[in-house]
Amino acid sequence: MSETPVRQSLTERLLAGDRRALARAITLVESDDPRGWELVREVYPHTGRAAMIGLTGAPGAGKSTLIGALAKLRREQERSVAVLSIDPSSPFTHGALLGDRIRLTEHFLDPGVFIRSMANRGALGGLSEAALQAALLMDAAGRDDVFLETVGVGQAEVDIIDHADTIVLVLMPGSGDSIQALKAGVMEIPDIIVVNKADHPLTDTMVREIKSVLALGAVGHGHDDAFWSVPVIKTQAHIGEGVAELVAKLDEHRAFIEAQGTLSERRRRNLRSEVLSICTHRLRRQLEARIEGDPRFQELLDEVVARRLDPASAAGEILGRLES
Amino acid sequence: MSETPVRQSLTERLLAGDRRALARAITLVESDDPRGWELVREVYPHTGRAAMIGLTGAPGAGKSTLIGALAKLRREQERSVAVLSIDPSSPFTHGALLGDRIRLTEHFLDPGVFIRSMANRGALGGLSEAALQAALLMDAAGRDDVFLETVGVGQAEVDIIDHADTIVLVLMPGSGDSIQALKAGVMEIPDIIVVNKADHPLTDTMVREIKSVLALGAVGHGHDDAFWSVPVIKTQAHIGEGVAELVAKLDEHRAFIEAQGTLSERRRRNLRSEVLSICTHRLRRQLEARIEGDPRFQELLDEVVARRLDPASAAGEILGRLES
Repeated sequence: MSETPVRQSLTERLLAGDRRALARAITLVESDDPRGWELVREVYPHTGRAAMIGLTGAPGAGKSTLIGALAKLRREQERSVAVLSIDPSSPFTHGALLGDRIRLTEHFLDPGVFIRSMANRGALGGLSEAALQAALLMDAAGRDDVFLETVGVGQAEVDIIDHADTIVLVLMPGSGDSIQALKAGVMEIPDIIVVNKADHPLTDTMVREIKSVLALGAVGHGHDDAFWSVPVIKTQAHIGEGVAELVAKLDEHRAFIEAQGTLSERRRRNLRSEVLSICTHRLRRQLEARIEGDPRFQELLDEVVARRLDPASAAGEILGRLES
Repeated sequence: MSETPVRQSLTERLLAGDRRALARAITLVESDDPRGWELVREVYPHTGRAAMIGLTGAPGAGKSTLIGALAKLRREQERSVAVLSIDPSSPFTHGALLGDRIRLTEHFLDPGVFIRSMANRGALGGLSEAALQAALLMDAAGRDDVFLETVGVGQAEVDIIDHADTIVLVLMPGSGDSIQALKAGVMEIPDIIVVNKADHPLTDTMVREIKSVLALGAVGHGHDDAFWSVPVIKTQAHIGEGVAELVAKLDEHRAFIEAQGTLSERRRRNLRSEVLSICTHRLRRQLEARIEGDPRFQELLDEVVARRLDPASAAGEILGRLES
């Protein structure tokens, strides 16, 4: 006399917050399965509620440990959490960043914390596109906080970080390159800066250095939140030190951008650029599919290699043929 | 009875190595003037002779000083030199990297050294495309060595470095982020690694660290030159220390890739990706031009912002309209 359970659709289960449905949905998106895109289309009206927090910084700065500590605190506040780690390491060193992910294991058994990582499969724009869809799915599944973890050195094509509402740069004492990049304006000023591993003797020197860089940029650092004073927070993520202060600043920043209207401005700008990026990515894929194995393309390329035809003219010929 | 000079074309003057013609030609390319593209088309058969050397690394590592020292040595060898500095700093900190360029002033009066910098104007792919054309013009003008200087932290869209025959990563003691990025496979292994500012007490520690990273990657670091053992060279660019050794390694690497056939392989692969990038960039520009001010695009975007239409579907609608 067992009851026959009503078989729910993946969409329904996802919207109900089912972890397995969320995992399955992300796999569909990641493998570029049309059902994944269809799913995102269906659940999209239920997105926009999660706080999207991007954490970036060089490998080794302790981003994963910090996210683990943040997740713990958010769970104590009875908020549900999702973590999306973008791993841009090359296929040849695959798993190099896995050590980081292991630091999140204490949450593996808590259904309130959903953890997923995505590796770069070399497709230009593809990873970023898939990652954004995954973040939307996490949002639709009712996660209150979505943490997006990316490596912020030399991988600008993974620009998922731009879709975060709040961007946190995680540094550690001795990470001179990132400071130099901030100073030179090569790296954008984030919303919050964390100096992790703050038991290091050079911590205060680094905090001073960061503050002087921020002071330099105070006139106009290209940020739309003109009156948000970027806080510099010292943490020791492995023992939870400073994490409560970081959570408070995350909430403060969220309240600030909501009050100023910059949250919706930022989201509009990001969504515009996302739509254009998806278009561009698809155009490039169409282009590659059309020239793949096309002997005329190989001939053009041979001409370019032989220095008889320049790259721009070759591009012009290819585009001309596509249009005709 | 003055002679009437034959008025030479810009192309002729460029091919004859005229500096002013080269400067003018690069300006045309940089401002996206059709005459610039036409010029590159004309002179392209005369390219492929220069040694293209890319130098990358965090700001502050001393790339410009090193290039100055390299230029000095190359001039003593009676080779002519061109330097192209790509400055990705944001418009808000514009000129932040100018200090670096000033370090090249000692060469300003030597006609054998041509120096040019290009700033990021925010156009996706645009800077990289223009920079490659500029490098081709330098090559066509008969420069023996073309040094391409880029900042290697967080600016992967400036991928001109990929078009170098030899890639040099410049580090300084304390640049922990770059080492971590190398270790994690986030940053590609270059052909030559320089530790500049080698009078710093931590130099040898850093060299050891780099060597252990290189040893890790020895099995297969994604490089096509399987048997090139990446040298780690200590320099003090400001006094010329170690620069002769670097020049020797540059020559050695060049001879190696020529002998192995990897130079032509690498150039073929780079030229293929360049042709595709130019195509993609133009497709994106066409797309932006067509939707610019188009009220239907604004309506679609409003739908996306209101969470009624997801970004991928919006992209699909836009592409569908373009095709119809």
